[in-house]
Amino acid sequence: MTELAIGIDGGGTSCRAAVADRSGNVIGRGRSGPANILSDLENSLFNIVESARYALRDARLDAEAISSVVSVVGVAGANVTDYGQRIEKALPFAEGRVVTDALIALQGALGDADGIVGAFGTGSVYNARRDGRLNGIGGWGFVVGDQASGARLGRDLMERSLLAHDQVRPASPMTEAVMAEYGNDPERIVEFAHSARPTDFARYAPVVFEHAAKGDAVAAGIVTDAATAIGESLEALLWSECPSICLLGGLAGAYEPWLSERYRSRLAKPKGDALQGAVELAVKLLNDQQRGAA
Amino acid sequence: MTELAIGIDGGGTSCRAAVADRSGNVIGRGRSGPANILSDLENSLFNIVESARYALRDARLDAEAISSVVSVVGVAGANVTDYGQRIEKALPFAEGRVVTDALIALQGALGDADGIVGAFGTGSVYNARRDGRLNGIGGWGFVVGDQASGARLGRDLMERSLLAHDQVRPASPMTEAVMAEYGNDPERIVEFAHSARPTDFARYAPVVFEHAAKGDAVAAGIVTDAATAIGESLEALLWSECPSICLLGGLAGAYEPWLSERYRSRLAKPKGDALQGAVELAVKLLNDQQRGAA
Repeated sequence: MTELAIGIDGGGTSCRAAVADRSGNVIGRGRSGPANILSDLENSLFNIVESARYALRDARLDAEAISSVVSVVGVAGANVTDYGQRIEKALPFAEGRVVTDALIALQGALGDADGIVGAFGTGSVYNARRDGRLNGIGGWGFVVGDQASGARLGRDLMERSLLAHDQVRPASPMTEAVMAEYGNDPERIVEFAHSARPTDFARYAPVVFEHAAKGDAVAAGIVTDAATAIGESLEALLWSECPSICLLGGLAGAYEPWLSERYRSRLAKPKGDALQGAVELAVKLLNDQQRGAA
Repeated sequence: MTELAIGIDGGGTSCRAAVADRSGNVIGRGRSGPANILSDLENSLFNIVESARYALRDARLDAEAISSVVSVVGVAGANVTDYGQRIEKALPFAEGRVVTDALIALQGALGDADGIVGAFGTGSVYNARRDGRLNGIGGWGFVVGDQASGARLGRDLMERSLLAHDQVRPASPMTEAVMAEYGNDPERIVEFAHSARPTDFARYAPVVFEHAAKGDAVAAGIVTDAATAIGESLEALLWSECPSICLLGGLAGAYEPWLSERYRSRLAKPKGDALQGAVELAVKLLNDQQRGAA
């Protein structure tokens, strides 16, 4: 057993790792390919381990050190059936613990404190830690969930543009810009929408926020609906002594001015990112172990 | 040239044909496989012609009669680029005209009168004839349109059930029944939703109406939203002298009590179905031609 801890943020576009000493000082970093454990367990495992190897090399440590470190890996899907355990068994570390991406994001944002974290990117999801206990809601995907996600904002934009084209709902500079982009042909919007992945819809989220900021009524309506949905989800998690709410993800800053004062008054800047959270949890695990061994 | 007209309702599940004399008396009927011209032009053409052959046989007419009849074929997609013309050119009739499914449905429901037709099945679409001119809106599919469709009702049901599961919105007997159907496992609902076709979601539309009739608050909310959407679309088409509004499709009767009095007061029973509309148009075409030839 060395004195080293590795935190790994296993993401859908890349895995990032950082190796730290038992005080939490990061001495090396690594990055590799993506981890999507539910759709490709084998390559995900490879990339998780590869990111750790790169971090050790960056810290000028022997490759063999990998078998003596303690690691915490955060990855989406870790709580689905036995996926997390299957990865834990296959990891080459002295001890490797696999947790959800939500937990490392929450640890990174809040440290050891209680609070609520809402993440707004292509999807939307909420996690709370209250008296040390975790509770997560949302994140069900844009077809039947993720009401405040970039994907839903983009899908709403397309729907309102078609309603404006049909003169069912009022048009606006934004809906006219969208129709113009598709040659004023609703069939082309329908064609896009029926093959669009969440990320394709989410590309339009910044467009919605830009128009909303300029006072476009349709854009403001879409963002207001999404902000109301955020409020409903925060309300489901909030308790009176909740010390802080952190907004994460690419759309966090854009949503902030649209939230009601009830939630804005509790907003706090995240302390760190998800990788930082994974490192903190790994260092904790290392210190717990050494106390156990003493 | 015979004295016969054939009307064909080329639908996504089957083609139906009826052969009539120049007074519109139906003397034979036929049915064949589906017509989905945008996805399978060749088989659609085959089935359209096959339904006509069956109708002629049913009327105890020679197979050769097909080359001397006048026909009107109503089929979805007839107005998309040159699909309608391509079918017209390939038909074996003395004269064959290809029109949209919307037009034959409107003709069947309204006859030659002005009015508005709203169709509510797996999708939702509206057509008006005002001073003889046609205007259609909606029908853009459930991803970004069809707000009052069975598919949207079912999708909304799944979304509200997940929100109730997360305690973000109130639960109801209906949302609890849906969660129970999926073993109280939100992941299973998400799995269903991400592979569901419009018809899969639409299977739940009767469930929503049943619960709404019993006073289930979530169900009533979903149906009220859809009825509001119907009102908005009707409003976009309505004019003060509009003689009647006809509701068509499997959900027409279920929606009726939920519409506002403004629209309910103008409701009229459809005179006939889409096949009847196709026959009427075919008989008109036959008589116009014979007048032209006289």
